[in-house]
Order: sequence, then C-alpha cells, then structure tokens
Amino acid sequence: MATRWGILSAGRICHDFVSALRILPSDEHQLVAVAARDLKSAQEFARIHGIPKAYGTYDELVRDPDVEVVYVGAINPHHLATVKLVLSHGKHVLVEKPLTLNEKGSEELIATARRHNLFLMEALWSRFLPSYDFVMNAIKTGAIGQVYHVDVTFGKAVADKAKLARKALGGGTFMDIGIYTLNVVLMAFGDEQPLEVKAVGHLNQYGVDESVSAVFKYSDGRTANIATSARVNLPCEAHIVGTKGTIKVSVDLISTS
Amino acid sequence: MATRWGILSAGRICHDFVSALRILPSDEHQLVAVAARDLKSAQEFARIHGIPKAYGTYDELVRDPDVEVVYVGAINPHHLATVKLVLSHGKHVLVEKPLTLNEKGSEELIATARRHNLFLMEALWSRFLPSYDFVMNAIKTGAIGQVYHVDVTFGKAVADKAKLARKALGGGTFMDIGIYTLNVVLMAFGDEQPLEVKAVGHLNQYGVDESVSAVFKYSDGRTANIATSARVNLPCEAHIVGTKGTIKVSVDLISTS
Repeated sequence: MATRWGILSAGRICHDFVSALRILPSDEHQLVAVAARDLKSAQEFARIHGIPKAYGTYDELVRDPDVEVVYVGAINPHHLATVKLVLSHGKHVLVEKPLTLNEKGSEELIATARRHNLFLMEALWSRFLPSYDFVMNAIKTGAIGQVYHVDVTFGKAVADKAKLARKALGGGTFMDIGIYTLNVVLMAFGDEQPLEVKAVGHLNQYGVDESVSAVFKYSDGRTANIATSARVNLPCEAHIVGTKGTIKVSVDLISTS
Repeated sequence: MATRWGILSAGRICHDFVSALRILPSDEHQLVAVAARDLKSAQEFARIHGIPKAYGTYDELVRDPDVEVVYVGAINPHHLATVKLVLSHGKHVLVEKPLTLNEKGSEELIATARRHNLFLMEALWSRFLPSYDFVMNAIKTGAIGQVYHVDVTFGKAVADKAKLARKALGGGTFMDIGIYTLNVVLMAFGDEQPLEVKAVGHLNQYGVDESVSAVFKYSDGRTANIATSARVNLPCEAHIVGTKGTIKVSVDLISTS
C-alpha cells in the first residue's frame, strides 16, 4: 500500500520535495493533501502537483484521517510547534532541517515521537546522496585507511537573503548551509560525538551568524575542521583524510539542487 | 662589498642553506667560516662547500672578526642560546624557524638584537617564494576583492621522525610544518593580529603535538582555519577567499624543497 503524504506549508522547499516525490511510483507514494496558512496558496500548490485536498489551516491537515505521514516544510521557527502538532495527532513526520532552532526543542520533539511511537526524521538530504553513500562505503571498507582528519568548507555569498539574515525567520548561516559541513564530519566519523568543539564566528546586524569556523577533537588523534560563510563563496568541498589516502567530495549542495 | 657569512651548525638544513646561497654571486655573498660542535663535521662541511675556515666550537665562529652575519641552523632547542651568543658578539643573525621554542625566548632575542642594534630574522622561507609574492600582490591589488576567509592545511605522515616526535629535540608538528599554515594566514591578513584563536590537537607519547586544528577570528567578519598533522598527508593547500574570487596556492613546502 502506498505511503499517504500530507504536505505542511506551500513554500519553495515544499515544491522541491513534492516534485522529487512525484518521480517515485504512485503505488508507493500518494499525495493526499496540502495545507498552508493561506488557503489560496494551498489550492495553487494542489493544482500544480495534482494533490486532491487543499487546506487553509494546519489543523485540518493533521486531523485528516487519510494522511499517514506529514512533510513539514514550514520556516525554521515553526518547526517545533508544527511537528508537535502533527505528532500529537498520531502522524509520522519528515521535517526540513534544522529539526528545531536549539537542542531543547529537538529533544522535546524526539521525546514526543518516542512517546507516541511515531517516525520522526530531519530531511538532511545529503545523507542520502549516492555520492555520499559511495564515500561512506569507501571509508567503511578501509579504502583510505584510518581516517584522521576531516576538512569541510561550504560558503555562498547569500548573506542578504532574508531567510538567512533574519532572526525572526530562524536565520543563520550555520543552520542553513553550515549544517552540511557538520554532517560530513559526523558521517565520516560514524556519528561519533567529538570530545571537544571550539568555534569562532561573526554575527550580522540582526544577531544572526554570518560565518562560523570550528574545530573538533575526536579520540585517538583524530580532528576535524569546518568553515561556513554567507559572505563569500568558500571552496565547497570536503576532504576526508586517512592513513592510505584522501577522499575529496563536493559539498556544493546549492548547485546540486 | 660582499656580505660575510658564518654558518653555525653543519646539519642538513645548513647544507640546504649554503647550497642556495652559493647560487648567488660571490661578490655579494661570501662564506667565511663554519662551526659545528664536532670539528670533523665542520671540516667536512667546509670541504664540500669550499668554506675557508672550520671551527669545532661556536665560540670560535662568533669571535671571528671576519664574520659579519651568522646563519643559525642548530636544532630548535639551541636557537635561544646560540642566537644570544651570536648577537652578544655584535653579529647579525638569520636563524632557522622556529625562532625559539616559546614567546618568552623570542621576545628575549628580539630585545637583545634591538639593544645591540643588530639584524635578526627568522628564516621562514615561504615568505620569499615567488608564488607567495605573486599571491600577496594579487591580494593587495584587490584581484579577489576583500578577503573574508583563509583556509590552510599542511600535513605529512612524518610522525616517526625524531626531530618532530621528541620534545628534547624541540619537536612538534606545529613548530615544524604547521608554522607554514599560520604564515599564510598572517600574510593574507597583512600580519594583523587575530581577535581570538581557538585550537584543538593531539600529543604523542613524548608530549609533543602530532596534530593541531585551529580557528582564528579577525575583525570585520573575517575568519581563518588551519590544520596540520604529522599522521596523515593533508591536502597541503591554501585557499584565500575574497568577495570577488579565491586564490588557491600550494603549501607543500616539503615537496618544493
């Protein structure tokens, strides 16, 4: 039976997600309904993607008994409340990154999902790119020996975009693109927690980070460096360095999308 | 009139220095004497490079009235004492990097040189490479706009070499090769001092650093990342990233030499 999706929000990222989902067989994934805070946006979204139902409130979407799992593409500051709403109505969730704006919020959502025995996942798509899959397999099979250092930079001159620049929109370079650098480090070290993290960075006029440079200390001589920037175009690549060789992979997920 | 050089120590780096110096016209640079703690080494060194005088003690070298400037190529822990000895005899000094093993020692030497009104320089050769000169000119002329980030990695799997591994020999990866990453950052930012530096790293069994990862915060939104390692071969390149473009330059000074 097909997985029955509800789409929460009708923004750009929701268009991207639904466009990708529609590539898959309709007997596997079915689009049931879309909800936006503005009914007209929802209706237009439904028309474009051939979705049967359009709602003007999120409440209607989460009460729809046909909906099994909800994709949450609302802006960052709404993730916590909307995901809680969905989970409390017994539906599974796939939510855009960042999961929430802070650790406390993320822990709350994870606890809620566990309590209701529901699936909850952050849509960090680079985790599922074939190139990343290839890289992680190469690491596991020892192609580059023991990994001692991971170096990742991802920066784009997008500092003026409101969603990055404004605190009220849950902005911040690290949350938007820097998260992908951290993801490479975590993947390369098998999601191991570092022993120590140190960082420096700069805030813009709205108190939102425009650049972050961080170093990570792992056990047994291992280290990692990341840099992200919304001011300049950094190299946008990752080097995973082992005793037998180095894997270089593009982190330029803006160009990829 | 030619600059009259004395060579203090007859080790490998001294051979490299003298070989390079001999490329220059003899009416500009003249090799007067070499001193080693072992007279036979000094004599052998003198024979190879055609140096008239060979001494078995550093004292004889610094007392030689013909010697005008001394190149100090002794091992790192001897820099402080030997450079002080040379300066106190009224001779100028070019000393291998690192100048000394710590800030206190370096300040002492600088003060001594100033007191005697003598020239004192650390032989950080990458400062004078034509490629670096080209890069620094490109930065100054604004070819890449305003520099916002500098990222440098230099690592070589040389952890087992005694001069790197042993504390008694003034070892440490940062002092040996990491210093070149820091130099690129300093050069790119016109020797400006960072507002903040944070670092992580690992020590070997002798208490000497085998890897260092550090981040630098500069004023006006600027940052820098460096990584060095004696465990693995890092990319060995620098990216100097500005608003209009990026300069990539090799930092692989071991291969260059």
